[in-house]
Amino acid sequence: MAPQYAPSLRSRLGPLLFVLQTGFILIFAFCAEVDSNVNVNGSTFKDSYTDFQDVNVMVMFGFGFMCTFLVRHGFSAVGFNLLVATMTTQWAIILNNVESWYYSGKIRLNMRSLVVAEICTVSALVSIGAVLGKTNPVQLVFIALLEVSGFVLNEWLLLNLLKVRPGNSMMLLHIFGAFFGLTVTWILYRKDSEQRFEKEKVDHKSGLFSMLGTVFLWVFWPSFNSALLSGRSPVRKLECVCSSYLALAVSAVTAAAVSVIFNPKGRFNLLHLQSCILSGGVAIGVSMPVVLQPWEAMLIGFAAAILSTIGFHLLQIHMLLAFQCHDTRAILSTHGLPGLLGWLAHFILLIRQCDDHTTAVRFAVFHICTLLITITTSLSMGILTGFLLKLKIWRTPQNKKCFDDQAFWEFPHLAVHK
Amino acid sequence: MAPQYAPSLRSRLGPLLFVLQTGFILIFAFCAEVDSNVNVNGSTFKDSYTDFQDVNVMVMFGFGFMCTFLVRHGFSAVGFNLLVATMTTQWAIILNNVESWYYSGKIRLNMRSLVVAEICTVSALVSIGAVLGKTNPVQLVFIALLEVSGFVLNEWLLLNLLKVRPGNSMMLLHIFGAFFGLTVTWILYRKDSEQRFEKEKVDHKSGLFSMLGTVFLWVFWPSFNSALLSGRSPVRKLECVCSSYLALAVSAVTAAAVSVIFNPKGRFNLLHLQSCILSGGVAIGVSMPVVLQPWEAMLIGFAAAILSTIGFHLLQIHMLLAFQCHDTRAILSTHGLPGLLGWLAHFILLIRQCDDHTTAVRFAVFHICTLLITITTSLSMGILTGFLLKLKIWRTPQNKKCFDDQAFWEFPHLAVHK
Amino acid sequence: MAPQYAPSLRSRLGPLLFVLQTGFILIFAFCAEVDSNVNVNGSTFKDSYTDFQDVNVMVMFGFGFMCTFLVRHGFSAVGFNLLVATMTTQWAIILNNVESWYYSGKIRLNMRSLVVAEICTVSALVSIGAVLGKTNPVQLVFIALLEVSGFVLNEWLLLNLLKVRPGNSMMLLHIFGAFFGLTVTWILYRKDSEQRFEKEKVDHKSGLFSMLGTVFLWVFWPSFNSALLSGRSPVRKLECVCSSYLALAVSAVTAAAVSVIFNPKGRFNLLHLQSCILSGGVAIGVSMPVVLQPWEAMLIGFAAAILSTIGFHLLQIHMLLAFQCHDTRAILSTHGLPGLLGWLAHFILLIRQCDDHTTAVRFAVFHICTLLITITTSLSMGILTGFLLKLKIWRTPQNKKCFDDQAFWEFPHLAVHK
Repeated sequence: MAPQYAPSLRSRLGPLLFVLQTGFILIFAFCAEVDSNVNVNGSTFKDSYTDFQDVNVMVMFGFGFMCTFLVRHGFSAVGFNLLVATMTTQWAIILNNVESWYYSGKIRLNMRSLVVAEICTVSALVSIGAVLGKTNPVQLVFIALLEVSGFVLNEWLLLNLLKVRPGNSMMLLHIFGAFFGLTVTWILYRKDSEQRFEKEKVDHKSGLFSMLGTVFLWVFWPSFNSALLSGRSPVRKLECVCSSYLALAVSAVTAAAVSVIFNPKGRFNLLHLQSCILSGGVAIGVSMPVVLQPWEAMLIGFAAAILSTIGFHLLQIHMLLAFQCHDTRAILSTHGLPGLLGWLAHFILLIRQCDDHTTAVRFAVFHICTLLITITTSLSMGILTGFLLKLKIWRTPQNKKCFDDQAFWEFPHLAVHK
Repeated sequence: MAPQYAPSLRSRLGPLLFVLQTGFILIFAFCAEVDSNVNVNGSTFKDSYTDFQDVNVMVMFGFGFMCTFLVRHGFSAVGFNLLVATMTTQWAIILNNVESWYYSGKIRLNMRSLVVAEICTVSALVSIGAVLGKTNPVQLVFIALLEVSGFVLNEWLLLNLLKVRPGNSMMLLHIFGAFFGLTVTWILYRKDSEQRFEKEKVDHKSGLFSMLGTVFLWVFWPSFNSALLSGRSPVRKLECVCSSYLALAVSAVTAAAVSVIFNPKGRFNLLHLQSCILSGGVAIGVSMPVVLQPWEAMLIGFAAAILSTIGFHLLQIHMLLAFQCHDTRAILSTHGLPGLLGWLAHFILLIRQCDDHTTAVRFAVFHICTLLITITTSLSMGILTGFLLKLKIWRTPQNKKCFDDQAFWEFPHLAVHK
Repeated sequence: MAPQYAPSLRSRLGPLLFVLQTGFILIFAFCAEVDSNVNVNGSTFKDSYTDFQDVNVMVMFGFGFMCTFLVRHGFSAVGFNLLVATMTTQWAIILNNVESWYYSGKIRLNMRSLVVAEICTVSALVSIGAVLGKTNPVQLVFIALLEVSGFVLNEWLLLNLLKVRPGNSMMLLHIFGAFFGLTVTWILYRKDSEQRFEKEKVDHKSGLFSMLGTVFLWVFWPSFNSALLSGRSPVRKLECVCSSYLALAVSAVTAAAVSVIFNPKGRFNLLHLQSCILSGGVAIGVSMPVVLQPWEAMLIGFAAAILSTIGFHLLQIHMLLAFQCHDTRAILSTHGLPGLLGWLAHFILLIRQCDDHTTAVRFAVFHICTLLITITTSLSMGILTGFLLKLKIWRTPQNKKCFDDQAFWEFPHLAVHK
């Protein structure tokens, strides 16, 4: 069928994974230890463990199944998501602790370091949504590891240049991930993709699998937004959870309304809904630190859903034709636009809360710099990654093999007794 | 294909959702604030948050996927469930706090108010199970909002007339929801539905999706039953969780046994199982306050499963032919009968626990009144809702468009690049 | 279609379930009560409840859906899993409390006794994986009840002969369950199964359902491994969770690498991945008490995944042809081999941690005896169960009815109005 890919995976993916995994084990062997102080950041072990499990279920299950909407790409969506997420989390644990490694020679593992690593992983999973189906797993692992390195670098820059606390800079992952992913997919653009890829199709059952993952993401998104808040101020956590929940509820309703209004036959579009019901959670995540009232959260969710649904409806085809940017999972409208809206809401609310003019200007400059640094790092890392991926050595799948599980998976009805 | 529905949704659903959502945001803007006292009802934030997430996963995911058993109605089941649940929860938050709004001008949001709102939403989701597939989303939203208003009214009546505590009256949601839904579907009866609807079919994969939702409901039902109990008495919570778990386990086993015995070929019936394995949880929820011993819970689960399975087997076809009542998701045998059985068990155990005759009679009268008020409110609201839905303005789907996603969803293999 | 099985289920399964269930209710009626002391083993009610829910979701949902990979056997996989699990848990609650019943006349129910019972149930679900599709539900219930009795007996032997604490002996469930299941399937071997069973096939959607269950097991496995640890030492729980997570992550990556390398076309095999990504969690569960460093956990996960994937690739066909042992869900490579590896790792680390020679030898003998007793009990109970199942009375499905839902399930498109 496709003998030319088979060797590529066998001779490249297997050894690559082995080498990387052995490397990670060696690094952990020399430096990692479990933190003996269990109550980090004001939370008991049990409290941080439930936070971790909510995030873990989103990362491994939610994002994986969310990508199963392509009818012949389900195994790849779920399988590669698990592979990439487990690799990236290990790498992110190391990167996030480089400083503590440098000073004390130790990487300390606790629930918080795992949660932080998984949230970094989400930024990589967002990026991967743009190239899914058009890349092989070797490329996916490579993209994810570079993306997460860029993301941690960005966080380090924001902390050291602008003193942005990690809890706040982490939530810029939606903006960082979306721009990184779009840059990579723009560089990897193939001439023929103006016509639809032959196998880029959705059917009824694959739509349901995808809805399954999306509903899980929707349900646990409040945990995602509140996972990094200190357990010492439960009021802050409560505010965050209530705001996230209301924003998500409003964006689900609004996305349905906009989707129906924009459709010429007045029907719903499942892919619109899947992208856009999450937009409220994304926007509120970015603007969290300054959202104090429930109605602010609801208004942000409302605006995010409108922006996201219209973005999906109008932009996706223009992105493809005008900008030559093929965005498989519509990460621009799912993460990019709502993330920018969240940043804008943060900006406006921050200015409004300032008492005097000088502080307002200072905050404004500071806040704009945060965005500029994030976008610059994201685009530069994206361009770097994209050009590295243009090299011949990766053996990118040909067009007619795109979005097809058969290129990478032994087909299972032949596989039972083998 | 069906040009006559398309405009109905575009010109009605979009604006309706927009107006309702804007209204909710305005109400929240003027009145809602996050409660600064985090430890409500004796539970810490974290404890009530895990309760909330369990209920949230049931409402958004469990009930949605439970209804996917109809082969061409999966998108509608999951999508409309999410839409209706998010609308209804916002409305229920407002309704539940009308009194506090009246006295203090504020709707206070905390984990408990969200959990209570989601439990009210469940009563609406129960009702909707009876009309699913035969109504359009505008009607579903309308039914859900009226149902939840009736349910909150009923709770208020019970509290003010009979001093029934909200924790107890909430659990009557199964009875209220079932009778409301049955009344609505009875009024909306169509002549032709004695023959099966053309698309009212189940297939192997849609059965599995539905089982997925049902197993989730089964697993988290103990959380549902115990979510409203005060964190101050963990023993009570433990009793509730143990009783619910045992009743659910017994009803799963019993439902399987009865299903096999009643089938002429001795085979299982997936739809029987799906309805009836939950009956133990429903019955124990209603009778919770007086169930003290594990064996009482098991016996209630046993009786509920027998009643529910026999009800499904014998009643559903009679309901349709004799009473002209077409019950899509068999809510009579899933929620109605086990709910009544739970009420009866509550009645018997309450009387048995009384020491003297006078108290027993007083309790009995009181308890019968509770049921009568609930059923009366439920039937009256159901009749009102049903007749409102008979109006022409709703453009109910024609018979051959029933149970068909294509009436409301743009079909996804055409939808990728648009 | 298959009139000869229908009566068998009707006249056997229904009454059997009724009798067993009534028996359980009677036992609970005379002896069970809810423990009034909520904080067992140093955990508050809420903490142990979240542990219980994680395990419960694995048992009822994860294991059920993990077995749905057979294309015509999905209903049976999920439905029989629920049936067997609910029966076995009730039986395990009774068995685990026989001693307390004997001394105090009471079976005390609390969160811990439910968690312990569900973990015992897992050992039965492991065994059933080997015979799934080739046995009817009467046989499955019988196997599960005997297996769990053997497992509790083994635990009692280990406690009384070697003073192995229950927390440690419980984790031997993977070894016990695997050898029990393999023995039973070896005795039940059918001549014709060298050629594939006609219906033993996987398709794309059933593969995804199965992946769904597997990912859930993967995500909640750290909870499974740490559920029995005392809440008094959160550091120990943290170590256990971190080790389990890292081992699972490493084994997911390694299983993917090995699967690609061993495949002649360099493709992934979904069934390999599903079995082998869990192997790290199995191995670390068995070796938990002595794993102190994260890298030890990672190395164990690495070795377990290699062993498990190679075992799946090479052994399964040899097991069938040379040993006449048909292993439906590959429990040898999923649970058996990683369990033995975990035991070996435990052995090596234990010896290494000993200071003097005498203690080391004592520990070694003690540890080897633990394994020998477990395997002996497992094999004897397996042989006993196997021969009892050879009797004619069970009406085992004929070869061409194996792996087919139609033998046991009324087909749902015929079932809506009946």
